[in-house]
Amino acid sequence: MYKKLFIPGPTHVREEILQAQTAPMIGHRAKEYSNLQGEVRPKLQQLLYTQQPVLIFASSGTGVMEGSIRQAVRPGKRALVTVCGAFSKRWFEVSEGNGIPTDKIEVEWGLGFRPEQVVEALGQGDYDALTLTLNETSTGIQNPVAEIAAAVRAAYPEIVILVDAVSAMAGAKIEFDAWDIDCVLASSQKCFALPPGLAVAAVSERMLKRAGEVPGRGYYFDFLDNLKYWKKDQTPATPAISLIYALNKQLDDIMAEGLENRWARHLEMAGIVQAWGRKYWKLFAADEFLSPTVTTIANTRGISVSDLNKALAERGAMISNGYGDLKEKTFRIATMGDLTVADINWLLGEINDILGLA
Amino acid sequence: MYKKLFIPGPTHVREEILQAQTAPMIGHRAKEYSNLQGEVRPKLQQLLYTQQPVLIFASSGTGVMEGSIRQAVRPGKRALVTVCGAFSKRWFEVSEGNGIPTDKIEVEWGLGFRPEQVVEALGQGDYDALTLTLNETSTGIQNPVAEIAAAVRAAYPEIVILVDAVSAMAGAKIEFDAWDIDCVLASSQKCFALPPGLAVAAVSERMLKRAGEVPGRGYYFDFLDNLKYWKKDQTPATPAISLIYALNKQLDDIMAEGLENRWARHLEMAGIVQAWGRKYWKLFAADEFLSPTVTTIANTRGISVSDLNKALAERGAMISNGYGDLKEKTFRIATMGDLTVADINWLLGEINDILGLA
Repeated sequence: MYKKLFIPGPTHVREEILQAQTAPMIGHRAKEYSNLQGEVRPKLQQLLYTQQPVLIFASSGTGVMEGSIRQAVRPGKRALVTVCGAFSKRWFEVSEGNGIPTDKIEVEWGLGFRPEQVVEALGQGDYDALTLTLNETSTGIQNPVAEIAAAVRAAYPEIVILVDAVSAMAGAKIEFDAWDIDCVLASSQKCFALPPGLAVAAVSERMLKRAGEVPGRGYYFDFLDNLKYWKKDQTPATPAISLIYALNKQLDDIMAEGLENRWARHLEMAGIVQAWGRKYWKLFAADEFLSPTVTTIANTRGISVSDLNKALAERGAMISNGYGDLKEKTFRIATMGDLTVADINWLLGEINDILGLA
Repeated sequence: MYKKLFIPGPTHVREEILQAQTAPMIGHRAKEYSNLQGEVRPKLQQLLYTQQPVLIFASSGTGVMEGSIRQAVRPGKRALVTVCGAFSKRWFEVSEGNGIPTDKIEVEWGLGFRPEQVVEALGQGDYDALTLTLNETSTGIQNPVAEIAAAVRAAYPEIVILVDAVSAMAGAKIEFDAWDIDCVLASSQKCFALPPGLAVAAVSERMLKRAGEVPGRGYYFDFLDNLKYWKKDQTPATPAISLIYALNKQLDDIMAEGLENRWARHLEMAGIVQAWGRKYWKLFAADEFLSPTVTTIANTRGISVSDLNKALAERGAMISNGYGDLKEKTFRIATMGDLTVADINWLLGEINDILGLA
């Protein structure tokens, strides 16, 4: 039995999108391919409210996280990572795993960062790069990236701001140019509602300039090399063509829905889950930081989340247990991609029925 | 009109394989996914005649090239790259692009390496890693990797041997354990006859030990981290699930064909192209190094390769122009993946007809 995925990625992929992967194979240096990427190009820019390049990689989002931080920090300089959960912590592991001198600041899980905290921390070291996580998938919080970026930019005009938007892009408004950030990246299996295997990254002039100043910045994710090919609607290495067919179809559908409608739908779905979470449980995240794409619910009733998921499986749905240490102490319901208000209401009805919630 | 691809990747993908991508989405930490990767695991090992792990990445082959060389060279040590064409040269660019001290030896294009050349070159520096290219896609040669590896291993027991088998794996016999090499990598869009977006790499004990000795060896392609997840039939980052569905189906079909039959079919197809190349043109590669998966033909008739491809397009086929400086001076016909002897005979008949070759 198919289980509709209400987990924070991979999320439910519609049948039409699955089918879009089956277009016949084409050569990646042939005009047919450039035409395809040329169709995708302006739609990705529109999605991110940017005139800057939005590069495409055959990779998960983690690969581009690694690629971006390697290109953001010059020798002798440091990176500052903001940690508010398990996924924002990944920035730290990735940066250290590449031998980059890295510091971190942390907030209690369930909270996000305030602009002044970040600006203050940046004053403590010789930083070339700052990492932010728009949406922390483990705790269900959204950081006020626009406000943080504005404050940081005012104090440190040259710092490169890298934003993990893996679980938010295409589900929440990200104004890349207006926010004046330098790299925002995401992968395909979250709010894009595509199969996994693709990642995209918008890159600023500042990011590209910095990349040029970093020797040994890597090869596969090298933004400057990728930019060269992007200008001819190609990629340096062979792209994941079947996934790009699916991306092209999905971007058409996103534009047909309308961007503002799409953001509103995500907020509405999350609002329904939040109201239900408040009624029967407790929300793990602080009110002011609640995410529009994933809600983490404190298991105040002491149920077995694992058993709940087994019962849901028999009814054709799947939610997520808490992540890492939060397993069984919390559970998560994603409101991502092409899920609908009707889907969410159906899911919550099934959970109510299973648990006997009135 | 669909053009059947006789280019050296992406190659023709059968309809059943395209359709295999459309299975419903599943969670990558769910049992359904581990079951899927668990089915793939032993078949990949069988394909490479190995008991060692064959890791899977959402990436093109280039990404894993980069990942492997970063993990093969300790600080203060060097890499030696063997260059015999444009793609083997990529090893050099990748290695230098990661700040690894790198030397190269070259042979004339159209030739491969002999074991004694490589052993001699290794005596000239303090090398931790050697890169080889099993099949050089630009010139259509195959290097005698088994013989080179045997000679190198006898002289330098600890050196890590990295082999790019991008355009050969699943089309030519690679005995990973018997050859005693340390990493052999390939991507999905060549002889696997899958859509692009997946890469695989077999890794030896020696490779894994070396990785552990390299600080700042990277994150996304970190073999030790990937190994940890491989043991539970997972990957650290989200895998390209729809492509892994296709891989699983294709591996079943490969096993049903029989490995020896598959290698023989590739040799037979290449033999037909070689005979035709000798009759009407000249083969670019030296006889002793001819590749079983791609034949590079010297354009001794001075035709327009570009025009030939236009005429072929109207008949539903596509071949490759020469690569880089060899453009128009050569052209390439791939005999990869699921192409058949009948396909090859049909293609050559069409070319004969277009060019008036009797």
